[in-house]
Amino acid sequence: MNIVPICEKDFHQFWPEFEAIIQAQETYAYEPHMTYLEAYTLWCEVPQVCFVAKEGETILGSYFLKANGMGPSSHICNCGYMVSSNARGKGVARALCEHSQEMGRSLGYTAMQFNAVVSTNTVAVTLWQKLGFAIVGTIPNAYKHGKLGYVNTYVMHKVL
Amino acid sequence: MNIVPICEKDFHQFWPEFEAIIQAQETYAYEPHMTYLEAYTLWCEVPQVCFVAKEGETILGSYFLKANGMGPSSHICNCGYMVSSNARGKGVARALCEHSQEMGRSLGYTAMQFNAVVSTNTVAVTLWQKLGFAIVGTIPNAYKHGKLGYVNTYVMHKVL
Repeated sequence: MNIVPICEKDFHQFWPEFEAIIQAQETYAYEPHMTYLEAYTLWCEVPQVCFVAKEGETILGSYFLKANGMGPSSHICNCGYMVSSNARGKGVARALCEHSQEMGRSLGYTAMQFNAVVSTNTVAVTLWQKLGFAIVGTIPNAYKHGKLGYVNTYVMHKVL
Repeated sequence: MNIVPICEKDFHQFWPEFEAIIQAQETYAYEPHMTYLEAYTLWCEVPQVCFVAKEGETILGSYFLKANGMGPSSHICNCGYMVSSNARGKGVARALCEHSQEMGRSLGYTAMQFNAVVSTNTVAVTLWQKLGFAIVGTIPNAYKHGKLGYVNTYVMHKVL
């Protein structure tokens, strides 16, 4: 697996996976029917950096990293991760998260924060906890899950 | 006191107060040296609505309201409030917050969330608690306070 800066061709290839993830409405607080260009802007252009995990020409997943706040809170970064459906359970999310922590440190951030981890996404919650993130907040009914209705979200945090 | 939609002339008049608040680095996670235009965009244009509290031609304070999340989290709104230095202790923040809750309800939001209330801003924390907001998260050392160094921030939440 190689983790390299994303290019538009990569995102184009990844777009069906991205679209399936947001349309499921189980993990991301994104507009489920956003356009390709809106998604590209949000995932690849607004963030400070964006990477893609590849095996040969196959896209395994992607993550972005950006500052979570401005000015007095600009020492904390924020990331989002997505893994392709046929690449799950193979350590891709862990590899992306570990890469992002190294990247965050090298960009001068001293902590990483996830603002809205869907509480029912136990695979993610458990993995982030294994990687040293703590649940530091619980927002009641903050996410309208595609199958389960309103569920809580967690704020998770780790010192880098 | 009248609370009315902000116009650019109002923001121009309010700008010295806004600038003093962000430069103090005690309450807002904004770039302390942002320009007038950056501040105008952030406070008045990016949000869904922005209001100003006036007594005659004097600006007492201002608030913005916007969605706190997209798609499955778009039922929660977020606000920011600022009160002019010579209008503090007169119930302006309370009036702005009560107005914003009514506005949030009328725009269809079912909850309000503050993402980064600086824990040492006890006047604000206490007022939000009086108005029914709960601390649902504590982010360690998330804010570099101008006088106190790194302090915690709170996530606060209220069902509307």
